[in-house]
Amino acid sequence: MSEKAIGVAVLGLGNVGTEVVRIIEESAADLEARIGAPLELRGVGVRRVAKDRGVPVGMLTDDIDALVSRDDVDIVVELMGPVEPARKAIMAALERGKSVVTANKALMAQSTGELAQAAEKARVDLYFEAAVAGAIPVIRPLTQSLAGDSVLRVAGIVNGTTNYILSAMNDTGASYEDALADASALGYAEADPTADVEGYDAAAKAAILASIAFHTRVTADDVYREGITKVSAADFESAKALGCNIKLLAICERLTSGKGKQRVSARVYPALVPLDHPLASVNGAFNAVVVEAEAAGRLMFYGQGAGGAPTASAVMGDLVMAARNRVQGGRGPRESKYAKLPIASIGAIPTRYYVNMNVKDQPGVLSAVAAEFSRHEVSIAEVRQQGMTDDEGEPCGAQIVVVTHQATDAALSETVEALAELDVVQNINSVLRMEGTTT
Amino acid sequence: MSEKAIGVAVLGLGNVGTEVVRIIEESAADLEARIGAPLELRGVGVRRVAKDRGVPVGMLTDDIDALVSRDDVDIVVELMGPVEPARKAIMAALERGKSVVTANKALMAQSTGELAQAAEKARVDLYFEAAVAGAIPVIRPLTQSLAGDSVLRVAGIVNGTTNYILSAMNDTGASYEDALADASALGYAEADPTADVEGYDAAAKAAILASIAFHTRVTADDVYREGITKVSAADFESAKALGCNIKLLAICERLTSGKGKQRVSARVYPALVPLDHPLASVNGAFNAVVVEAEAAGRLMFYGQGAGGAPTASAVMGDLVMAARNRVQGGRGPRESKYAKLPIASIGAIPTRYYVNMNVKDQPGVLSAVAAEFSRHEVSIAEVRQQGMTDDEGEPCGAQIVVVTHQATDAALSETVEALAELDVVQNINSVLRMEGTTT
Repeated sequence: MSEKAIGVAVLGLGNVGTEVVRIIEESAADLEARIGAPLELRGVGVRRVAKDRGVPVGMLTDDIDALVSRDDVDIVVELMGPVEPARKAIMAALERGKSVVTANKALMAQSTGELAQAAEKARVDLYFEAAVAGAIPVIRPLTQSLAGDSVLRVAGIVNGTTNYILSAMNDTGASYEDALADASALGYAEADPTADVEGYDAAAKAAILASIAFHTRVTADDVYREGITKVSAADFESAKALGCNIKLLAICERLTSGKGKQRVSARVYPALVPLDHPLASVNGAFNAVVVEAEAAGRLMFYGQGAGGAPTASAVMGDLVMAARNRVQGGRGPRESKYAKLPIASIGAIPTRYYVNMNVKDQPGVLSAVAAEFSRHEVSIAEVRQQGMTDDEGEPCGAQIVVVTHQATDAALSETVEALAELDVVQNINSVLRMEGTTT
Repeated sequence: MSEKAIGVAVLGLGNVGTEVVRIIEESAADLEARIGAPLELRGVGVRRVAKDRGVPVGMLTDDIDALVSRDDVDIVVELMGPVEPARKAIMAALERGKSVVTANKALMAQSTGELAQAAEKARVDLYFEAAVAGAIPVIRPLTQSLAGDSVLRVAGIVNGTTNYILSAMNDTGASYEDALADASALGYAEADPTADVEGYDAAAKAAILASIAFHTRVTADDVYREGITKVSAADFESAKALGCNIKLLAICERLTSGKGKQRVSARVYPALVPLDHPLASVNGAFNAVVVEAEAAGRLMFYGQGAGGAPTASAVMGDLVMAARNRVQGGRGPRESKYAKLPIASIGAIPTRYYVNMNVKDQPGVLSAVAAEFSRHEVSIAEVRQQGMTDDEGEPCGAQIVVVTHQATDAALSETVEALAELDVVQNINSVLRMEGTTT
């Protein structure tokens, strides 16, 4: 076994990068035992070289291209963040025969095909466990442990910020705006929370999960996406009455037609989840991914989905594996073939729905509402009606909550449009999907 | 990429073997896409060749040695069961340069060093994901995903039979004997349930988990073991009052002394688990493993721990990985170095305890009992005393339940011995540990 050191370049020195550098330095002996050769940090790429970064200034460089080109760098760990300049740096590293470890979900959800091809051509490793669900191993279980099984469905809570906000709304009855403000104050939400609350972050992870679960190429643009900004305190009240919590879910499904043709659905939206479903009790900043496979049945993976140390744990796992591959002769085994399965349109996906509306409190209203569902062949599973009062305590109409059996997005949308036209319907307050039940 | 077929021999045709053969046959096209070459079944080793096994008779052979020696066999899948003749067959396969996939926990817990050495010498793979927790990926996450982190603790429910029995006792208030009888009638317990209910099966899995989590060699003999046969309906009643469930846990811990010396503890026993701990709600035949690592924090893996199809899923994952390695040039990366950390004696392990005893109902009893705990420096966290009545409804003494703070097994054992000597103590009903809290 070679005792030649494995040279590492780290790009980016944020929370995760700082932790990765710390572990490489402080756990050097352990890592050498795990790998079979010492791991040596060659340099850290940063935008601006400064003294106060907790790393000797001599280690820092803003010349990323020079760093990833060094002959004594074997593995490049990319933790810079946005798609560019990360993509350019990773391509340069791969082309120069370096293995690459990255936590960059936006990039992997957009350019995975291009990057995988470059890695294949250079015969090096491209690992990205940290791109989905932080410390929780999901990429390796899906690509390796379940490689001989057939995955049917992946459903996950993969964004900590939105789960923190929704958990707070569920626990305290707070409005979305108040829960978001709290999350920002506590550092759980960024100054511009758009990527999280509008579901872009979860959509990137859904694309990655769908790609590896179904051995096909899915990009973030293929993912149907709704954020959590319209979820209200009233929705949580109704959800509780229905025995549910509300979670932002990333769902990936393989759909097989009667003729055996396969399509893939990847989608992100807030949904009602029955309390007896394992995802319903995943709270705060935690993440969890439920995988359903033909032989394995239902599996769940749970843990911290973000943060410097947890994400660094996933990066370090990839780094040790890439280093072991170098020491033991090359690169790790990988998927041999990716399909390009067609993406199912959201209109064709059957799910259950929850519709919350304000109506006039007069005879025949419920019957008129029910008739619209029936007309569009959307079957009703449960209805709750309750009287409402205005600020003075005077009766002012009623609220109707309808939960449907499975219906397509298309049929439901038509129903909701027709309901809005009804004279007795004052307002459609919200329409949410319900997941985690089969009927 | 080579398109040469990968030849597979399956040894054993029980529930798991039958499923593995079925998947190899029915998912041939998918498996070829995953691997990069077709997977071809060369033969199935059985004790007795017969027509009614669901496999063409020509595929069956009782000459295991001839089967594993065939030149056209690349990978041997061992699913025969007991330690022998499985060990002999696996050694023969490894010595002839075949990669091996096994689900044999008893064997891996006993001979892992010998087998790993043989695999290393022959430069082939030895995979055993199915040996622990059925379909749930735990071996690969521990050996790969967490390879750059430092695992502190692994705690799991890894035996479905005992979890089924304990869940039934918790749900219905049944006695151990009745719950066992039900489990046997429903096929969840074997005719001779000793290996499950006395904790031998869980101890084998604890040894495997401790070995891979802490990069050291631990065998089943190193594991402290108590079964569930003495857990009573009264214990579940007390546990409920304390906000706990009772679970058979496999616990692996790395202990670091003040001087930095490391020891390993691996132990299996029934323990009270607070309801807010993720393992408390893992019920029925399900398994779950909680891993605590320095950077990752707490992770949980959950799913079906036994059964033909779930176990076959894990076997197939290993088989595809071993096959990919063959196609792509050799074998997978592996642990480079195993330590031989000393095993901590159970007497030195601090845990919390629950002690349930019958006492005379007279003044000063509680004080006498408390004094014994104090004398042995075992700190009490909670005491519950309640009067008891005999069959006629007459008062007949009291029951005292004591929950301690952390104490060593040695100190607690001495306390219990001293309590049993007390005149006012009529009977020590049970002593169980409490896990999942830190104080």
